[in-house]
Amino acid sequence: MSDARTPWSGRFEHTPGEFQQAFGASLPVDKRLYAEDIAGSVAHARMLAARGIISGTDATSIEEGLLGILKDIECGAFTFSIADEDVHMAIEAELTRRIGDAGKRLHTGRSRNDQVATATRLAARRSALELAGRVNGLRGTLLHLAESNLHVVMPGYTHLQKAQPVLFAHHMLAYSWMLTRDLERLRHAYGSADVMPLGSAALAGTTFPLDRDAVAAELGFGAVSPNSLDAVSDRDFLADLIYACTVGMVHLSRLAEELILWSSEEFGFVTLDDSWSTGSSIMPQKKNPDFAELVRGKTGRVIGDLTALLVALKGLPLAYNKDMQEDKEPAFDAVDTYGASLHAMTGMLGTMRLNESRMRQGALGGFMAATDLADHLAARGVPFREAHEIVGKLVLRCEREGRTLQELTVDDLRAASPVFDAAALDAVDIDSVVARRTTAGGTAPGRVAEQMAAAREALERDEAWLGQCGIREE
Amino acid sequence: MSDARTPWSGRFEHTPGEFQQAFGASLPVDKRLYAEDIAGSVAHARMLAARGIISGTDATSIEEGLLGILKDIECGAFTFSIADEDVHMAIEAELTRRIGDAGKRLHTGRSRNDQVATATRLAARRSALELAGRVNGLRGTLLHLAESNLHVVMPGYTHLQKAQPVLFAHHMLAYSWMLTRDLERLRHAYGSADVMPLGSAALAGTTFPLDRDAVAAELGFGAVSPNSLDAVSDRDFLADLIYACTVGMVHLSRLAEELILWSSEEFGFVTLDDSWSTGSSIMPQKKNPDFAELVRGKTGRVIGDLTALLVALKGLPLAYNKDMQEDKEPAFDAVDTYGASLHAMTGMLGTMRLNESRMRQGALGGFMAATDLADHLAARGVPFREAHEIVGKLVLRCEREGRTLQELTVDDLRAASPVFDAAALDAVDIDSVVARRTTAGGTAPGRVAEQMAAAREALERDEAWLGQCGIREE
Amino acid sequence: MSDARTPWSGRFEHTPGEFQQAFGASLPVDKRLYAEDIAGSVAHARMLAARGIISGTDATSIEEGLLGILKDIECGAFTFSIADEDVHMAIEAELTRRIGDAGKRLHTGRSRNDQVATATRLAARRSALELAGRVNGLRGTLLHLAESNLHVVMPGYTHLQKAQPVLFAHHMLAYSWMLTRDLERLRHAYGSADVMPLGSAALAGTTFPLDRDAVAAELGFGAVSPNSLDAVSDRDFLADLIYACTVGMVHLSRLAEELILWSSEEFGFVTLDDSWSTGSSIMPQKKNPDFAELVRGKTGRVIGDLTALLVALKGLPLAYNKDMQEDKEPAFDAVDTYGASLHAMTGMLGTMRLNESRMRQGALGGFMAATDLADHLAARGVPFREAHEIVGKLVLRCEREGRTLQELTVDDLRAASPVFDAAALDAVDIDSVVARRTTAGGTAPGRVAEQMAAAREALERDEAWLGQCGIREE
Amino acid sequence: MSDARTPWSGRFEHTPGEFQQAFGASLPVDKRLYAEDIAGSVAHARMLAARGIISGTDATSIEEGLLGILKDIECGAFTFSIADEDVHMAIEAELTRRIGDAGKRLHTGRSRNDQVATATRLAARRSALELAGRVNGLRGTLLHLAESNLHVVMPGYTHLQKAQPVLFAHHMLAYSWMLTRDLERLRHAYGSADVMPLGSAALAGTTFPLDRDAVAAELGFGAVSPNSLDAVSDRDFLADLIYACTVGMVHLSRLAEELILWSSEEFGFVTLDDSWSTGSSIMPQKKNPDFAELVRGKTGRVIGDLTALLVALKGLPLAYNKDMQEDKEPAFDAVDTYGASLHAMTGMLGTMRLNESRMRQGALGGFMAATDLADHLAARGVPFREAHEIVGKLVLRCEREGRTLQELTVDDLRAASPVFDAAALDAVDIDSVVARRTTAGGTAPGRVAEQMAAAREALERDEAWLGQCGIREE
Repeated sequence: MSDARTPWSGRFEHTPGEFQQAFGASLPVDKRLYAEDIAGSVAHARMLAARGIISGTDATSIEEGLLGILKDIECGAFTFSIADEDVHMAIEAELTRRIGDAGKRLHTGRSRNDQVATATRLAARRSALELAGRVNGLRGTLLHLAESNLHVVMPGYTHLQKAQPVLFAHHMLAYSWMLTRDLERLRHAYGSADVMPLGSAALAGTTFPLDRDAVAAELGFGAVSPNSLDAVSDRDFLADLIYACTVGMVHLSRLAEELILWSSEEFGFVTLDDSWSTGSSIMPQKKNPDFAELVRGKTGRVIGDLTALLVALKGLPLAYNKDMQEDKEPAFDAVDTYGASLHAMTGMLGTMRLNESRMRQGALGGFMAATDLADHLAARGVPFREAHEIVGKLVLRCEREGRTLQELTVDDLRAASPVFDAAALDAVDIDSVVARRTTAGGTAPGRVAEQMAAAREALERDEAWLGQCGIREE
Repeated sequence: MSDARTPWSGRFEHTPGEFQQAFGASLPVDKRLYAEDIAGSVAHARMLAARGIISGTDATSIEEGLLGILKDIECGAFTFSIADEDVHMAIEAELTRRIGDAGKRLHTGRSRNDQVATATRLAARRSALELAGRVNGLRGTLLHLAESNLHVVMPGYTHLQKAQPVLFAHHMLAYSWMLTRDLERLRHAYGSADVMPLGSAALAGTTFPLDRDAVAAELGFGAVSPNSLDAVSDRDFLADLIYACTVGMVHLSRLAEELILWSSEEFGFVTLDDSWSTGSSIMPQKKNPDFAELVRGKTGRVIGDLTALLVALKGLPLAYNKDMQEDKEPAFDAVDTYGASLHAMTGMLGTMRLNESRMRQGALGGFMAATDLADHLAARGVPFREAHEIVGKLVLRCEREGRTLQELTVDDLRAASPVFDAAALDAVDIDSVVARRTTAGGTAPGRVAEQMAAAREALERDEAWLGQCGIREE
Repeated sequence: MSDARTPWSGRFEHTPGEFQQAFGASLPVDKRLYAEDIAGSVAHARMLAARGIISGTDATSIEEGLLGILKDIECGAFTFSIADEDVHMAIEAELTRRIGDAGKRLHTGRSRNDQVATATRLAARRSALELAGRVNGLRGTLLHLAESNLHVVMPGYTHLQKAQPVLFAHHMLAYSWMLTRDLERLRHAYGSADVMPLGSAALAGTTFPLDRDAVAAELGFGAVSPNSLDAVSDRDFLADLIYACTVGMVHLSRLAEELILWSSEEFGFVTLDDSWSTGSSIMPQKKNPDFAELVRGKTGRVIGDLTALLVALKGLPLAYNKDMQEDKEPAFDAVDTYGASLHAMTGMLGTMRLNESRMRQGALGGFMAATDLADHLAARGVPFREAHEIVGKLVLRCEREGRTLQELTVDDLRAASPVFDAAALDAVDIDSVVARRTTAGGTAPGRVAEQMAAAREALERDEAWLGQCGIREE
Repeated sequence: MSDARTPWSGRFEHTPGEFQQAFGASLPVDKRLYAEDIAGSVAHARMLAARGIISGTDATSIEEGLLGILKDIECGAFTFSIADEDVHMAIEAELTRRIGDAGKRLHTGRSRNDQVATATRLAARRSALELAGRVNGLRGTLLHLAESNLHVVMPGYTHLQKAQPVLFAHHMLAYSWMLTRDLERLRHAYGSADVMPLGSAALAGTTFPLDRDAVAAELGFGAVSPNSLDAVSDRDFLADLIYACTVGMVHLSRLAEELILWSSEEFGFVTLDDSWSTGSSIMPQKKNPDFAELVRGKTGRVIGDLTALLVALKGLPLAYNKDMQEDKEPAFDAVDTYGASLHAMTGMLGTMRLNESRMRQGALGGFMAATDLADHLAARGVPFREAHEIVGKLVLRCEREGRTLQELTVDDLRAASPVFDAAALDAVDIDSVVARRTTAGGTAPGRVAEQMAAAREALERDEAWLGQCGIREE
C-alpha cells in the first residue's frame, strides 16, 4: 500500500498499520524542530550545489520551497500528518509535492540519522542560550533585591534553627552565585551541542564529496564532528542540557522552599503579590504560594527527565538505535519546565513585599549572638572549645529563665566566666554581630557591598557572552 | 475583575496573569479526567439531595447539566479554557453557566482537594484494569507461542554465552510468569486506588452531614478513606500504579532485547513481520526492529516517571501542597507508555516467524552438553567439583581442535577420565539433554507441558478477576 | 595455577588477577547472607540424601560441617577471603577443607544461580518481616501520641498556609494510615520473595531427581518457582522490597519535615528531646533536629537504590547475567536505611515534648474559621460560591484592620451579608470549628476516637500476621 | 557525662545514645578524607599564626601533632571511634589529647560547615584528576587498538542490523571521542570543586581577621568562595563530579554491551583473555564476559548515586542542613565505581584477541552495499528516493533467492534499472564501499588515519593539562 507514504518501502511487502505509525512516530514531539530542520536542509542544499552534486536550479528551487513551507508552518497553514513519522519526513514529503524531483535530490549524501542530530543540536544550542538569558534575568532580580535592601537584617539558619543574623542582601546574593554556576553549566551544554554532525550520513560517512566545513559555517557551528559513528549516536549534548536544567531546578527548589516558609504566618518575612498567589475553592481566607510549590514540585520531573535519557542510552551498541528517539521529549520537557520556573521565580521575587520588621524581630530571637560571646572569650585567651561550653550553659540558663542574651548584665556574664568584660554587651548587639563578620564573603555590610559589585560584574560578563553567541546563532 | 474567572477571588486584589494561568493550570493534563469528574459530581449531588442538603430539583438539574456536558465533551463540542485551571473548575463553571444557581450548590461540603483525589482514583483504578487486560493479552500470545511450538529447541544463555539447550516454549513461558507477577502488581495498585476520599473536604472533613458510604457505593469504591488529612495528601495509589508500570516495562525491555538479538543476522532466530518493522531512509536493505527498540528505550521514561512522582512528594508537610499537582502527568505517561508497549509486544510476537532450524543449529554449538558430561561423572561417584574440572579441560581441548562434544568417541572421553562409559554418548545428544531436565520447572517436555497448563490456569483465574472488577466499575 | 581457588578453572589457561577478583567479588556485600546460604545448603543436602543422590553419611557430615562454620562465623572466628568471590563459594570451600570429598558433593544438582537466588529470597523475606515489625512499632508510637493527647488542637495546613484547625491526634493518625499502607507493601514484598528457586540449577533445571517441595517445606517457602529460566533471572522480589522501602521513606520524609518545622523557633509546636538532637561545634546555642534531617535526606539514597536496581535489570536477555550481581547492595542499603530511619522516627516521636499552648495559639491565627462562616451562609441558602466570595472579602478587610474573625460582632458580619445571624459567633469558635467536622474521617473528637479504634484494630491484625509469619520462618 | 565526647554539649542535658551516634555519624564514610582534613587544618593553623590569632608556638605544635596523626593513620596505628561523629572531630579530639590546649585553638574562626566543605572539595578535585588519568589510559588503549588494526573491516550496525561496513579502527575511535568528552566533563567538575570555602565559618563568615587568600594559595585552590551562606550549602561540585561519572558509565556500558555481543558465539568478533573472563560453577564449558557485564550493570548504581544526591538537596532552605551529610557516600561510590570500571575496560580491551576473519565475513553479509548501489544510481541522475526504492526491491529479491549483492551480474542489475552500469560491480566490493566514504569523519582509511592523528593530539593535550593540575595539587 503505502509506497507513497514511507521513504523506505522498497524491500517491504507490508508496511506498519495505524498503531505502529502512532507508536513509532516522533512527530508530535519533534515538530517543534521545523525551523532547525529547514535551516539544516537549506545549508545542505546550498553546499550540494556549490560542490556540483545537484544543480544550482535544483538548489534554488529547494530553498524557495523550504522557505515557503517555513512560512506556512509559522502562520499555521501547514498540517502535519502522523503518517510522516517525523518532522523531517513531513517537510521533505511536502517539498517534493511542491517542487517535484528536485525535492527528492535534497536527501543526497544525507541520512535521517545525521539530519536529526543536526536539527536537535541547533535546538539544544538555542535552548541553552534562551535559558541562559532567563538565568541572567533572575540574577538581575536577585541583585536588585540585594541592592535595594542593603540594610535589612534577618535570621540566618542552619538546620532551620536560628544560627546567626545575616543581611537579607547576603542571602539573595547566595542564590545569585548558584545561578552563576547554573549559567556555567548551560555554557558547557551550549559547547557540547555546538558540533555539526551533518555529513556522517547513516553511520559511516558518505561517498559524495561534501563540504562539511561550509555547512558548519553557514549554520554557525563551532566544530565539525570527527567520527561518523559517534556523530549519529551521541546524545551527550542533550544529557548535558538536561543536567544543567536539573541542577538549576534543584537551586530553584531551595529558593521556592524559602518563599513558602517566608510567606507562612509563622515566618511572615515576605508577602507574595496577589498576582503570584492563588486561593482556595473552599477556604475563603487562603492565599497560597502555589507557584513556588509548583517550582519545587517540578524539580521531580526534571530529575525524572535526566533519568529517562540516561537509562534509554544505557547499554546501546553503536551506532544509531531507535531507543534514541526517546531523547527529545525529556530534553524539551526539561527546557520548558526550567524556563517557565525561572520566569515564575523572577516574577515572584520581583513583586513580593518584604516585611522588614518581622525579619529584624526574628533576628533578635534564637540566642544568635552566642557565637560572638564565645568568640569574645576566645579572643581573651579561653580555648574555643571551653568558651563554647561556657556559653552553651549560659544559653540553657537563659532559655529556662525566659531571657534573651541581650538582657544579660555584665555581672550575669561574669558569673558564667570571669573573663567576660563590658565589651561583651556590644558583642550581642545584633547589628554589631552582623558588622563584625568581615572575612571575605562574610555578611558584614562592607563585604556584602564588595560581593554585590562582583556579582554585578559577573552578570555583565555573562550577558556579553550571551550577546556574542546570539549574534553567531543568527 | 476576575470574579467570573476564579472561584477564590474574594480576598484578592489582583489575580494571576496569563503566564501564571498557564503555569498553574493542570487542564492540559487533567482534562482526560472529565468522565471521572462528572461521575464523582453526580454521585455527590445525589447524596446531597438524599441527605436534604440540596433540593431534589437542584440535584436533578445538576445531573442533567453534567450529563449534557459529558455528551458535549465526548462529541468534541466542548471548548476548555486554560483560565479554568483544571478540568473540575472547567466543568463546574460551565454547569453554572448552563443551569444557574443550582450549579453553585454542587460544591457544598466538598473541596477541590477531595474532588481531585476522587477523580484521580477512579482513573487510576480503571487504568490498572485496562493495563491488566493488556497484560493478559500478551500472556495469551506467549502461551499460544509456547503451545504451538512445543518441539522447538533453542540455545539457553547465561551471560549471553550458550549455556544449555532449552525448549523455545520454556523460554516463552518464563516471560508469561513475569507477566503474571506484573498483573499482581496491577492488582495491588487497583486496591490502593479503590478507596474513596470524597467527604474529606479541604483537609479536615466538613460540617455537612454527608453520607460517604452511599457515595462510595455509587462509585463502586471498596472502602472509604479513614482520615481526611491523609485522604487529600495521599498519592501512594499513583506511585503503586507507576511502579507496576515500571517493573512491567523492565520485563518488556528484556523481551525487546531478545527480539532485537534474535532478529539480527547473527542470531537469526526470528523474522519480524514487515508490519512490525521499519526501513531506512538511506540504506535500502535495512529492516529494523524499531518497535522493540522503542519499547526498550521507553523503559527509561517510565523509570523517570516514577522518580518524578517520588521526588515531588519527598519532604512535603501535611496536608495538600500544590507540588502534588505534578502527580498526574507521570502517572498518565507511564500508563500510556506501558499500555502501548504491551500492545506493540503482543503485535510483534503474534506475527513474527520462527526460524526453527537456526535455533536448533544454534543449540548444537557452544559445548552446551558439558554439564551433562559432568553430571554423568558425578552420577558415577566423581565429586562434582572434580567432574567439572575434567570436562572443562575436555572443552578446552575440543575448542583448540575444532571439534564438538558430539564428535567425541568413548575412547576420547575415557582418555579424559576412565569413569566415562558409553552412556556418555547419549548424554551429549541435544534432545536428550533437554529431556533429562525433569525437575519441576525444568525444560524437559513433560515438565514444560505441566507448566503450560499451570500458566493457562493462572491466566484464566486472572481474567475472571478482571471480569468481576469490570462489572463493579460500571 | 589456581585450581584450588576457583571452582570453574578447568577450561581456563589463566585466571583473573587481584583487581579482577576484587572487582568481580560480591563477598563484601553478600557475606551477610551466610546464615541463609547455610540454611539452604542444609536443606539441599538433606533432600539429596533422602532421594539417595548422596549418602546419609555425607549429608550428616555436610550438615555438621556447615553448622560448625555457622558457629564460627557468628562468633567471629571465620575469615572470609576475597578470592572466594562470594559467600557461597567461601562457605563451600571451607566445608571441603573441613570434611573433604563430601563437601564437593553438596553442589550436586545445584548451581550458584539458583543457590544465590534462594539465599537472597530468604534474606528478603526476613527483611520484609523485620521492617514490618518496625513499621508497627512506629504505628504504636503514633497511636499512643494520639490517644494521650486527644484534646490538643493545632492548625491544619495546606500549602503551609493555615487552613482549618485540627486535632493533633488526627494529624498523628494520618501518618498511622500511611504506615498501614507501607505495611501492606512490605507484605506484598514478602509474598514476592516467598517462592523457592532451588532446583532450577543454572537455567534449565537439572538431571537429578530432586524433591523441590521437600526443600521448600524445610525452608518455609510458600511456593516453588514454576520456570527455571525465570527463577534464576527474576529479581522482582528485590525491586518490590526496595519499592516498599522507598514509599516508606517518602512518608517518613514528610513526617521529618514536619518535625523540623515544628521544632523551629517560628512554629515551636514541639521540643525534641536532647537525646534526639545535636549541637554545633561553633554556635553554642544551637539545638538541631539532625536525625529528622537525616531521615529526610536519606530518602534520596533509597530512591537512588530503586533506580540502581531497575536500571541494572533493563534490557537484559534471559537468563542470568552478571549485571544481576548488582542487585543486593541497593536492596541491603534500602533495608538498612529504612529500618534505621523507622527506629529514629520512633525514638524522636516517643520522646518529644508537645507545646500545647503554642499549638492552640497557632490555631487561633490565620482566619481558619472562614470556611465555617461560608458554610454558615451556605446553610442559610446562599450558593456556596457566593458565600465564599463574601467571606473572602471579609478576611481581606480583617487583615487590613488587624482583627481576627473572633473579634467581629454580629453587626460587622451583617454588614458583609444580611444572611449572617448570631450563630455565626459560635461558627468561628475554634473548638466548635473542630467539633463540627463530623463526617466520617473528619477531625471532630468523636470521629477521631472512632478512627483511633480502627487504627488500633488494624495494628493488632497486622501484628498477628507478623507473628504467624515469624513462626513459619523459624 | 559526655563533655569529653561531643564538642557541643554545653546547652544539652542529655546527649545522644549509641544508636543515635551510629545513625548520625558520617565517620565510616568520611574517614577517607583524613589527609584532606589534615591539609586543611595545617593551612588554617599557619594562617592563624601568620595573622597573630594564635601563637607561632601553638601553630607549630598543631602542625606537628597533625602530621603525627597523619602518619599514624597511614600506617594503620590510629583507631577511629564512632563516638567522634566524623573524621574531622576524630582528628581534632586526638590532636587535643596529644598536644593539649593548643589543639583546642585550632578551631578558632572555623566551623565544621566550612571545614567539611573544604576537605570534600580537595577530595573531589583529586578524584576528578585521578579519573581523568584513567580516562586517558583507556583512550590510549583505544588508540593503540585503532592504530594497530587499521586494515580490519567489520560490519557497522544501526538497530543491531548490518548497515554499512566500517573499519574496526573507526569503531574504536568513536569511543575515544566519547571519552574525550568525558574528560571535558571531569575538567568541568574539577573547576567546580576548585573554590575554597574555608573562612565562611558556620554560615555568615567570622569575626577573626582571617587571610583566606593565603589559605587558598597554600591548598592550591584557584578561587575563594564569594558568599559564606552559599559556601557552606553548595554541593554542586559533587553533583558535577557524579554527573561526569554517570555519563562516563553510560559510555562504558555501550562498549561493554559490544564486548558482550562480540564475544558471543553468534558474533565471534573478539575473544576475551582468560584473565578477563570467568567460568561457571556448574557448566564446565562456560567462559563468561563477567567484567563487561558488571560494568554495564554498575551503570545503574551510578545513575542511582546521581539521583540520591539531587533528591537529598531538593527543597533545602539555606544554609547548611544535615541532609547534606548524605552527599559524600554517593560521590565516593560513583568515583570508585567509575574508576574501577575504566580500569576493567582498559584491561579487557588491552588483552582481547580480534578475530579478523569473522569480522570480515560478517561484513560481507547483510546487503550492506545497498546504499552504494543507490548512490550509484543517484550519481547518474536518479532522484535518491527513487534509487532507494529500486535497490530496496533488489534486496528483497536477493533475499528470497538466497543471493548476495556481490553475486549479481550487470544484467541482473540492469533488469532492476537501466541506469546501472559496470561500475556498479565495484560499488558493491566491500573494501571499495569502505574506501569511498571519504567525507571528513567518514570510514575511508585516509580519513580514519587523519582522525587517529587528531585523537592522538587531543589525548596529548589533555595529558599535558593533567600534568599541570597534578603539579598544582601537590
